[in-house]
Amino acid sequence: MTSTKDIITKKRDGLPLSATEITHFVDGYASGEIPDYQAAAFCMAIYLRGMDDSETVALTQAIAGSGRQIELAEFGQNTADKHSTGGVGDKTTLICSPIAAACGVNVAKLAGRGLGHTGGTIDKLSAIPGYNSQLTPSEFHSQVRSIGIAVAAQTEDIAPADRKLYALRDVTGTVESPPLIISSVMGKKIAAGAACIVLDVKYGSGAFIKTHEAAQTLANSMVDIGEACGRRMSAVVSSMDAPLGNAVGNALEVREAVDILSGRAAYDNPQIIYLRDLCITLAGRMIALAKNLSEEDGEAMARAALESGAALAKFREWIAAQGGDVSFIERNDLPLAPLTAELFAPYDGGAKFPFDTHKVGEAACALGAGRMVLTDTIDPGAGVYFKHENDGVTAKLYSSCEEKLARGVEVLNTAVLMF
Amino acid sequence: MTSTKDIITKKRDGLPLSATEITHFVDGYASGEIPDYQAAAFCMAIYLRGMDDSETVALTQAIAGSGRQIELAEFGQNTADKHSTGGVGDKTTLICSPIAAACGVNVAKLAGRGLGHTGGTIDKLSAIPGYNSQLTPSEFHSQVRSIGIAVAAQTEDIAPADRKLYALRDVTGTVESPPLIISSVMGKKIAAGAACIVLDVKYGSGAFIKTHEAAQTLANSMVDIGEACGRRMSAVVSSMDAPLGNAVGNALEVREAVDILSGRAAYDNPQIIYLRDLCITLAGRMIALAKNLSEEDGEAMARAALESGAALAKFREWIAAQGGDVSFIERNDLPLAPLTAELFAPYDGGAKFPFDTHKVGEAACALGAGRMVLTDTIDPGAGVYFKHENDGVTAKLYSSCEEKLARGVEVLNTAVLMF
Repeated sequence: MTSTKDIITKKRDGLPLSATEITHFVDGYASGEIPDYQAAAFCMAIYLRGMDDSETVALTQAIAGSGRQIELAEFGQNTADKHSTGGVGDKTTLICSPIAAACGVNVAKLAGRGLGHTGGTIDKLSAIPGYNSQLTPSEFHSQVRSIGIAVAAQTEDIAPADRKLYALRDVTGTVESPPLIISSVMGKKIAAGAACIVLDVKYGSGAFIKTHEAAQTLANSMVDIGEACGRRMSAVVSSMDAPLGNAVGNALEVREAVDILSGRAAYDNPQIIYLRDLCITLAGRMIALAKNLSEEDGEAMARAALESGAALAKFREWIAAQGGDVSFIERNDLPLAPLTAELFAPYDGGAKFPFDTHKVGEAACALGAGRMVLTDTIDPGAGVYFKHENDGVTAKLYSSCEEKLARGVEVLNTAVLMF
Repeated sequence: MTSTKDIITKKRDGLPLSATEITHFVDGYASGEIPDYQAAAFCMAIYLRGMDDSETVALTQAIAGSGRQIELAEFGQNTADKHSTGGVGDKTTLICSPIAAACGVNVAKLAGRGLGHTGGTIDKLSAIPGYNSQLTPSEFHSQVRSIGIAVAAQTEDIAPADRKLYALRDVTGTVESPPLIISSVMGKKIAAGAACIVLDVKYGSGAFIKTHEAAQTLANSMVDIGEACGRRMSAVVSSMDAPLGNAVGNALEVREAVDILSGRAAYDNPQIIYLRDLCITLAGRMIALAKNLSEEDGEAMARAALESGAALAKFREWIAAQGGDVSFIERNDLPLAPLTAELFAPYDGGAKFPFDTHKVGEAACALGAGRMVLTDTIDPGAGVYFKHENDGVTAKLYSSCEEKLARGVEVLNTAVLMF
């Protein structure tokens, strides 16, 4: 058996590691037998030397195997999950999941909470009074069985090696490494059990990846790795150069999702059109994979389910099944935070939309819509809504605290790009 | 102030670090404010990205400055130290130090203990009954003042950052990095205070560095770094493709040193001639630097001091000053271990001398002459002595334990190279 130090030096010297060596490392680190300092040196060696596909597959499988793996075999190939690499205003899960479920796809999804400038699906769903994201495994399974959709918070027993590795990478400058990113994302997805996985890889000013090319490369790699792990894969590369839609913030985003599901959205600017089309694309891919159809046929079914109201009905069924109060849906009046401010950026003053999207995410966070550290509490009604006018953009800021409102205005001001 | 993580990522991305950043890291790590895992990632980034000369100087000075720095200013430029990068049978300090001291150089030397296949000067001196290597700073200074030579064990308060970093590098695959090696060696040498430093950089099968070229490159870098730290530097590159001399083991090596100092060595094979000449070269460089002479003049003085018996007299004076029993010197009969075995490697059977020198070091270690781990105790009488005959080489093995003797024979057998 190769020693831990030999594994580090092999990677340091650019030699490929065997699956046994990689599993030894991941299991040893997860169990605490391998100390943080050896894992840190290993991550830096991976960062600088890279990993080939078979190593990345082994790392992904080792991470998936480090904890509980959800068993969805009873559904055969018909289970689909969707994962986004993180963005600002990304409420696609709230829209494409019920669309796909309305088309007969079993959507069995574990979702995360937000951190930093990006939001998390569980935080958005938690803006709905009563929504229970803490499903037991048997509740989760039985809900998928009965209504074809369940979205629960990822629990600590899923891919525990990833949590430990991520925390270490975060403080050792080893986050932005393709094999480490891929195995972190895909390890959790593989453990989550869905047979079909659709990835939404973001690029642009609001994403971790800045260029379309880099996002496409990452997407291709994740597809390869997922397929090598026996899953049906599809990836979409989408822009995060502007916030997705006009709403950033939890209740605001739920309202925007309902606007789209109910057909009441005003398609008066490119952002909202882009959001709807992306949701149709993502749902279409989920349907195509799970039902073995072409992407075109999947998209057509998705569009029809959205237009017929079937997706909205499925959304209502899903939220109700998880204990959420669905009475807000009709008038779409989920409460927003009481304090508001407006910032108008006139085009003839040199303002240019989209704004610096990362900064928009930070502004929403400053208002109370997100967390900078894991212990921050979230104000579900806080956020920013962009209204596009002929002569400029009005950003309406919501917060429950004067100080946070002022800070949000300050940060959002720095997000305005000038010609 | 750049954060610790920013310093790691700068190095990871191949950007040069400032002296302030490097000092922040070394001081923070030495004090425990920076955890092992960040230091491990940093060392791996240095390993793979390297450091330029000004970074290496800053790292060296930060390591030197992490503990006590010996003050030898009272001696002006006339203090010399010699450092070897580690070899098998390397007793040069025992020979060249009294030669240089006999020529009026103040030899103020801190030496180390052996680990792994290489021996340590303090272990060799400890084979002499009564020799005290634990001098207090004032004992050390007053001995240099009175007789011009003192060799003491390096204490824990010298370059403590290096000890901590070295232990970490040892388990994270980051030992063999030029800037880390240079700053480790030179940081300790700078802290040890001598104005003149002669380096003996080893290459070959018994050394950490395998080729002459790599050793020359390292030697040049260490000279540059030492000079940038304000010291007078000289470096010799020497072969460790064969054990240095014929003796490997502590008492055996003291006896060989006395053979050379007393002029009673039998110069009947290249190894012993090479050892004597190397000692003259090293002592000559020490004299040249400390006395501001040419290398040729330094060597001539060294040779004369050896031939006149002045060096042996200085050796006796030095050992006595540090409490050592000098009665063995006349008959050169320091006790050896009681159990012996002989291994004859006949040339016509295909054996080739030099043997695999690293393995010879391991064999000596197995016999009890060295430590594989820091807590091993040393048998001063154990070791190997090579006797060159017309038709082959006889290796005589010494140990105090049958089991170790058998193990030593076994390891030494693997050291015999065949044509």
